[in-house]
Amino acid sequence: MNTNPGPLVEQVSVKRVNGQDSNRVVDVVAIEEPLAIRLQYWFKGVQRTESLALTMRTPGHDRELAAGFLYSEGVIRSPREIVQIRQLGEDVDVSNELLVEVSSQVDVDMWRMSRSTFVSSSCGVCGKRALDALQDHVPSSPPDRFLVSAASIHQLPRTLTAHQEGFAQTGGLHAAALVDAEGEVSAVFEDIGRHNALDKLIGSQLLADQLPLARKILFLSSRSSFELVGKAVTAGAPVLATVGSPSSLAIETARRYGLTLIGFVRNDRFNVYSGEWRLNS
Amino acid sequence: MNTNPGPLVEQVSVKRVNGQDSNRVVDVVAIEEPLAIRLQYWFKGVQRTESLALTMRTPGHDRELAAGFLYSEGVIRSPREIVQIRQLGEDVDVSNELLVEVSSQVDVDMWRMSRSTFVSSSCGVCGKRALDALQDHVPSSPPDRFLVSAASIHQLPRTLTAHQEGFAQTGGLHAAALVDAEGEVSAVFEDIGRHNALDKLIGSQLLADQLPLARKILFLSSRSSFELVGKAVTAGAPVLATVGSPSSLAIETARRYGLTLIGFVRNDRFNVYSGEWRLNS
Repeated sequence: MNTNPGPLVEQVSVKRVNGQDSNRVVDVVAIEEPLAIRLQYWFKGVQRTESLALTMRTPGHDRELAAGFLYSEGVIRSPREIVQIRQLGEDVDVSNELLVEVSSQVDVDMWRMSRSTFVSSSCGVCGKRALDALQDHVPSSPPDRFLVSAASIHQLPRTLTAHQEGFAQTGGLHAAALVDAEGEVSAVFEDIGRHNALDKLIGSQLLADQLPLARKILFLSSRSSFELVGKAVTAGAPVLATVGSPSSLAIETARRYGLTLIGFVRNDRFNVYSGEWRLNS
Repeated sequence: MNTNPGPLVEQVSVKRVNGQDSNRVVDVVAIEEPLAIRLQYWFKGVQRTESLALTMRTPGHDRELAAGFLYSEGVIRSPREIVQIRQLGEDVDVSNELLVEVSSQVDVDMWRMSRSTFVSSSCGVCGKRALDALQDHVPSSPPDRFLVSAASIHQLPRTLTAHQEGFAQTGGLHAAALVDAEGEVSAVFEDIGRHNALDKLIGSQLLADQLPLARKILFLSSRSSFELVGKAVTAGAPVLATVGSPSSLAIETARRYGLTLIGFVRNDRFNVYSGEWRLNS
């Protein structure tokens, strides 16, 4: 389904202790490597390049990760604003540096200013203001009537297990899956970071010009937080379901933006924290 | 043990679905709120203030969080470099903004320069260079002969469960505990973020002038990553044990800096990924 996943895991020799006994075994661990995302953009007719972010990620789908990150952060809004994404360094197979060139339509300076105003203004960081700040990113979309059945939510963990190859080996990788109302999976991305897994998924859909994610369920192996809900809302997904628990601000944000937020999806149970009208069971 | 924990959790009304049945219940979720950390420092005889970080955290022990964050990032090296930490805003009970004033001894400009060189230099983000960059933070300490028994590692989860009040209620809070070789717990901090939980713990020890953490075990409810190992190494802890799995770079970093790294501590079992000579069983 996904191309070029790259190696997600590697083997290490470890001492395994069981009670008072121990032996030497080969364990499989998730690969973690840094990725620098550099941005090339236009400012007053001059092209500039600068470091935008350094993230620790599991290599593979770095283009999707960078695209999804830029979209979630509000730097870009459409795939047409990306001129190219290319790896830097001599050995492109193992590059940990990506350059994203954006079109002259992208006003990086304005984006930076609105972002720094948010961070530095007085009370810029009250929970309520954090919610407000999302508003700029959220695409205006017509109200939808997308409904899901309890049965389709119950089957999500089994569906994910079937697709999440890295986790089965390590227990240390998060997954983000895109699922339709019938339970059909159209994309799964794994990463050591839950934010990265979701950014890879959103980036893949952005690059394929498949945003907003109308009539889709986002399913994450992790907990949900303000940031993850923000990414889901920005990408236009109507439903975010997670294996773990939501935070207080995740719930508040979901309620504010009409996202159906579901947590603790396991063993044929789940909790609906927001937007329960979408459950048609 | 810790003062002023603040509310870690709050109650929400949710729809609980069990198979095809559903009912309305009160669920308890971890509180997530943003915290802005501002830094006041001296530059060429003039005092400056700027926003250093915005982190999503569970309120409580914000002073410890800010102090631990500055220490882990290498901005400060000793509690004597902190002049004061104070909350901003009118209502200090619910402030989400902290100002850390550092002494004129702290060269924030130099710190920023070395940090940005690391991020922007070519291959600044190879895994190997990430390891090298830690070197500047790590205090030089004499080789120690701190040993731990398998029994003391086995009892860590039980010890943590007894102290981790928030998690028992929500399943959504990470904990960081400081434990000696006899299993005595001297500090436990909980937060929705695993990095924050460890920063709070390290900050509490910094403010009490108890760094480096010689002859102590750091125990985390989470997985371990490059960043978490970096924090442990910088704080001088000889052992980092976690309930979850380590990443590849966590293991590489631990081996490079002589940290004993233990993972999957549960059900009287664990794996030793680095520094197994400390296990005296």
